[in-house]
Amino acid sequence: MPLAIDIERLKQDFFELSEIGKNPEDRGLYRTAFSAADMEGRAWLRRKLEALGLAVRMDGAANVFGRLAAEDEATKTLLVGSHLDTVPCAGALDGSLGVLVALECLRTLKERGTDGYTRHLELVAFSDEEGRFGGMFGSEAVVGAVTPETLEYYSDLEGCTLAEAMTRCGMNPLEALDARLEAEQIDAYLELHIEQGPVLDRLRKSVGIVENITGLFKWLIKIRGTANHAGTTPMEMREDAFMGLADFAHEIPRILEENGAESSRATIGRAQILPGAPNTVPGLVELTIDVRDTSKAVLEDLGQAFHRALSAIARRRKLMFDYEIQSEIEPTECHGEIIEVLEEEAQSLGLDYLKMSSGAAHDAQIMAQLTRIGMIFVPSREGKSHSPAEWTAWSDIEAGANLCLRAIDRMARSAKT
Amino acid sequence: MPLAIDIERLKQDFFELSEIGKNPEDRGLYRTAFSAADMEGRAWLRRKLEALGLAVRMDGAANVFGRLAAEDEATKTLLVGSHLDTVPCAGALDGSLGVLVALECLRTLKERGTDGYTRHLELVAFSDEEGRFGGMFGSEAVVGAVTPETLEYYSDLEGCTLAEAMTRCGMNPLEALDARLEAEQIDAYLELHIEQGPVLDRLRKSVGIVENITGLFKWLIKIRGTANHAGTTPMEMREDAFMGLADFAHEIPRILEENGAESSRATIGRAQILPGAPNTVPGLVELTIDVRDTSKAVLEDLGQAFHRALSAIARRRKLMFDYEIQSEIEPTECHGEIIEVLEEEAQSLGLDYLKMSSGAAHDAQIMAQLTRIGMIFVPSREGKSHSPAEWTAWSDIEAGANLCLRAIDRMARSAKT
Repeated sequence: MPLAIDIERLKQDFFELSEIGKNPEDRGLYRTAFSAADMEGRAWLRRKLEALGLAVRMDGAANVFGRLAAEDEATKTLLVGSHLDTVPCAGALDGSLGVLVALECLRTLKERGTDGYTRHLELVAFSDEEGRFGGMFGSEAVVGAVTPETLEYYSDLEGCTLAEAMTRCGMNPLEALDARLEAEQIDAYLELHIEQGPVLDRLRKSVGIVENITGLFKWLIKIRGTANHAGTTPMEMREDAFMGLADFAHEIPRILEENGAESSRATIGRAQILPGAPNTVPGLVELTIDVRDTSKAVLEDLGQAFHRALSAIARRRKLMFDYEIQSEIEPTECHGEIIEVLEEEAQSLGLDYLKMSSGAAHDAQIMAQLTRIGMIFVPSREGKSHSPAEWTAWSDIEAGANLCLRAIDRMARSAKT
Repeated sequence: MPLAIDIERLKQDFFELSEIGKNPEDRGLYRTAFSAADMEGRAWLRRKLEALGLAVRMDGAANVFGRLAAEDEATKTLLVGSHLDTVPCAGALDGSLGVLVALECLRTLKERGTDGYTRHLELVAFSDEEGRFGGMFGSEAVVGAVTPETLEYYSDLEGCTLAEAMTRCGMNPLEALDARLEAEQIDAYLELHIEQGPVLDRLRKSVGIVENITGLFKWLIKIRGTANHAGTTPMEMREDAFMGLADFAHEIPRILEENGAESSRATIGRAQILPGAPNTVPGLVELTIDVRDTSKAVLEDLGQAFHRALSAIARRRKLMFDYEIQSEIEPTECHGEIIEVLEEEAQSLGLDYLKMSSGAAHDAQIMAQLTRIGMIFVPSREGKSHSPAEWTAWSDIEAGANLCLRAIDRMARSAKT
């Protein structure tokens, strides 16, 4: 019988975990990081891992690990997992699916036996990927990017700091500084995740093999004009900040065509028009632009082109503008050897797969600072995520989980390095 | 000595009235309709009118009248005035200047004597022009447009209804229904007002003679797309409601050029982008468009053109849209005979005047339902109004007031009709 996961067991785990933090009213999950429901989810996972006979631990950043050791203690570890925390009113798959697939893979491999493995296998469920406190906290702690300042700097929308939230969960926040793992201990990090976009669903592909994760920059732009009476101010005497925004938005397709690549995205997601009265010409507009690409050089070109467009519009319309860079993340490559393993295994399973970029950020991106990374995507029905409408067909989940299983099995047998 | 107002007396009145409702912190006036400061302003005006020996009354809508009767009680009345209420944090000229100029004109004419007048002269200070409760309440009461429903329907931003506010001022709101004047009693309504726009100031004109007041329509437009992840959703798979708005804004200059006239204005003053997260493609945009012109036919053409533009954008971008008409006001003509009188008197005074449209709404527009109207504008420094920065040079105020005075004197002597 070929090596395969048991989809019924995976479903069973999924339905159990999906009840933790569920709001009966909107059917959404509320397992935001370090909430009671989040900690309950972690406790549930620990019980599952313990029942499986794995060596279980939770580090100082609340990352949960379950270890299936190889015989040779001198070997490196292959980490497999994702995150358990959710956005408010979340779907049940984002993050959780990657953890549950890792659990089912380790269960399947433990039952089958791991003779000949040259790697320890370790499941990891990272904490605060979604960003109640900034995001990627668990993986950042593992790569050693967390400092005491991190713990005090980040706070949630209610003003509760990360350190306070951890303390309320009975943790000592400073122990997050001990969560760091050493690069020489780790062989690779593999993560299965829902795509959170429409590409696989539209193309009817079962799985995606991620080649790279887009980098991004996010600017908060202010365009200043002069607020004036909408009736008494002739069109040619206006310094209309909103029209500056409209011009800028209109340049996006041209800038992407001229300076971008196929993977480029640019989004104006937030815009505030002030003073915001129907009969007043807007005097100030605050907007964000979120720009993504898989190439650092392309991102730089796009940044320059957006800056030039703002300058030209401001001159033409007699406006002022400035912007602050709110975030900047470099693009990340998945490791060529892991992409190769995933492709070969997808072919041997007869899967209809797509090599693609990830437009969303993932723990894998952080883990790339420490080790080789690989990612498997499964389709998001209609591209929906961060919503109770988030869904993936069980057949696609099964396909993705088996690809993950085969890749783990093969990577665990690699020659020792 | 030629007939002329006394600018020093006008200044004196102006400085007295400007103290009523002044906030020492922001130097702005707060005489919103039926506030204590507004009622104090009305009491101040009544005392001034009484001191002048005029017949003073306040009607059920809190409009203040001061009457300088002609000898023949069978004659009609020439109304002259504006409003005393202000927006919050207002300048001192909007409305008040027209009332103070009317006061100074009646004082000048009473002193000089009104022998040979075939018209009663009556100053009027309307209430709630600025819209704490909908706007134009005083003039609407005078033309008989107020119903008991008006009193209960309109409420301020704190939820206080017009009827409640009037009751708190010791008035019986239902008496507003008795404020109606009969058309046969009134000969004309003349109003001096600041321009509230930049045209006279830019052209260095002392006065404007208003030919017409723009009509307008205001739509609340909803553009619906699909909210999606800004990173994972390829540009060509988006249904971005904000980009629909940007396209629409971009069509404004073309639509005004193709379908509008020189007096046409179109303004997107308010826009709300939802959900409004930087990393989410907007799924819904709510915006207002305020469109003005002096011609009803042009307004209709513009409405059709904006509708067609919305339809085309929605089709192209796979969006839905709908709109509700929030208000619709027909353009109003000033009376040709009054324009003629104002022009001749401006010429005889040697004033550098401009015949122009009013882009803002005024009580005169409402009074046109009842009688012939005429309006005089004085320049607004840099077009500023609804702000403590609102200002007009005293020399221009003097020019406008003398034009008003001469026009009153001439109209009061017209043949009896």
